[in-house]
Amino acid sequence: MALAMGREALNEFLDRAFPQIAGQVRVESLDETGLTARLKVDDRHLRPGGTVSGPSMFALADVAIYLAILARIGEVALAVTTNASIDFMRKPEAGRDLLADCRILKLGRMLAVGEVLIRSDGTEEPVARCSMTYAIPPKR
Amino acid sequence: MALAMGREALNEFLDRAFPQIAGQVRVESLDETGLTARLKVDDRHLRPGGTVSGPSMFALADVAIYLAILARIGEVALAVTTNASIDFMRKPEAGRDLLADCRILKLGRMLAVGEVLIRSDGTEEPVARCSMTYAIPPKR
Amino acid sequence: MALAMGREALNEFLDRAFPQIAGQVRVESLDETGLTARLKVDDRHLRPGGTVSGPSMFALADVAIYLAILARIGEVALAVTTNASIDFMRKPEAGRDLLADCRILKLGRMLAVGEVLIRSDGTEEPVARCSMTYAIPPKR
Amino acid sequence: MALAMGREALNEFLDRAFPQIAGQVRVESLDETGLTARLKVDDRHLRPGGTVSGPSMFALADVAIYLAILARIGEVALAVTTNASIDFMRKPEAGRDLLADCRILKLGRMLAVGEVLIRSDGTEEPVARCSMTYAIPPKR
Repeated sequence: MALAMGREALNEFLDRAFPQIAGQVRVESLDETGLTARLKVDDRHLRPGGTVSGPSMFALADVAIYLAILARIGEVALAVTTNASIDFMRKPEAGRDLLADCRILKLGRMLAVGEVLIRSDGTEEPVARCSMTYAIPPKR
Repeated sequence: MALAMGREALNEFLDRAFPQIAGQVRVESLDETGLTARLKVDDRHLRPGGTVSGPSMFALADVAIYLAILARIGEVALAVTTNASIDFMRKPEAGRDLLADCRILKLGRMLAVGEVLIRSDGTEEPVARCSMTYAIPPKR
Repeated sequence: MALAMGREALNEFLDRAFPQIAGQVRVESLDETGLTARLKVDDRHLRPGGTVSGPSMFALADVAIYLAILARIGEVALAVTTNASIDFMRKPEAGRDLLADCRILKLGRMLAVGEVLIRSDGTEEPVARCSMTYAIPPKR
Repeated sequence: MALAMGREALNEFLDRAFPQIAGQVRVESLDETGLTARLKVDDRHLRPGGTVSGPSMFALADVAIYLAILARIGEVALAVTTNASIDFMRKPEAGRDLLADCRILKLGRMLAVGEVLIRSDGTEEPVARCSMTYAIPPKR
């Protein structure tokens, strides 16, 4: 499937539409099978113990899957998350960014399903996995 | 089951242990069957369209269930979220706080399970439901 | 909201459309806020240790939510499960039926969300909780 | 990680410990990174429309992840499912077996997490994805 938006276009969209996380999340790479996003971890993302908080990982997974869908259907569509399931499996390494490797498993007319594995930059073992469903509004 | 911590103690704990969300989340009420927490919605929680973002609702659910567990087992225990499932069902009303009504369904030796219904203040219909599992570390 | 189908009509539908579980699941009660279904536990539902298997509880939750949706929108619609999340919290009591108490949290034009608490007949503590999303096909 | 049980040992265990599904589910292949299990689809697994039922897919995912854990820790341990999340994404093809490709994402001292993609035999697109958590009882 040809991509409707490339890496630069997705990052520009992110800055424009989501100013609250501008500069925190970046699309690292993108191809027809998947997308990798980076969370530039700073103090805002930490919880007691110095590790990245669950809501920060949830936000990263949400953005990564959302952008992977937009990469396929274009910016015109306003997709909304309807369901998410997340497993927190290991403590992220302190002082490292998080990388989210995302795959779209289904891109239907009304629903899209994506999944993400999150890992600390420079490591292989996943710290979290997440799957999400997005409702895609009908074209006008 | 007698409560180990009351509303004031939980709010003080929140301010001390989670300075990043201090002032944003408050325990409203608490009894032996449940806990209600309020998210004081401001610009940080919004997404395009003026509605509260999914990660903000996730964070509210996470804190509410965490505090409901601590209310029962006390501050000494460090519980961590291992799994969460969330359904976003309706768009929250613009300009209103969110209330999270939480129940603990299981409080075992190793695992606790809680669930939350989130609604806009002043309305009845749930905007989101969430269930979470926490691992409770063994006592030393 | 007025109900489109009553208890008898739902049980007849179950026998007709799902012969594989005919006689195993029954609607016990039904009103505008919820539905209770019974699983008549027999050897087919057991796993090692004499307890009811996870897939049997999943099937009970699935049927209960499905019937609660049909009670509201009528038999004409063919709803399909798109997502389910289930927590197994306690071991069901040996030799007892299971009861599933179901609530519909959202009944939209395209998606419905329901949740279920499952308990052993005669006891109060939930053995499992489950939430499910159903896609409702558009009317022709 | 060396495997504690091979394909034959797992299939023998299945027949012995789970007579209710004996002959329905088989381990097809197994290595250090994953396991593939087959559901021999017959009338018991079908729902109206001739497609495989959701509970049958849930049962297949449950068995596949369970066996992948036992392959690593051996038959001695009695693991129980504590949480499952499943997305049904496409209708399985009529008249074909289902294959479940399973990976263990975490194998901790107390909790294991696995995920599964289910597809119709001979096709590539996933019909369902599932992630599950198992509690592993402490060694005596």
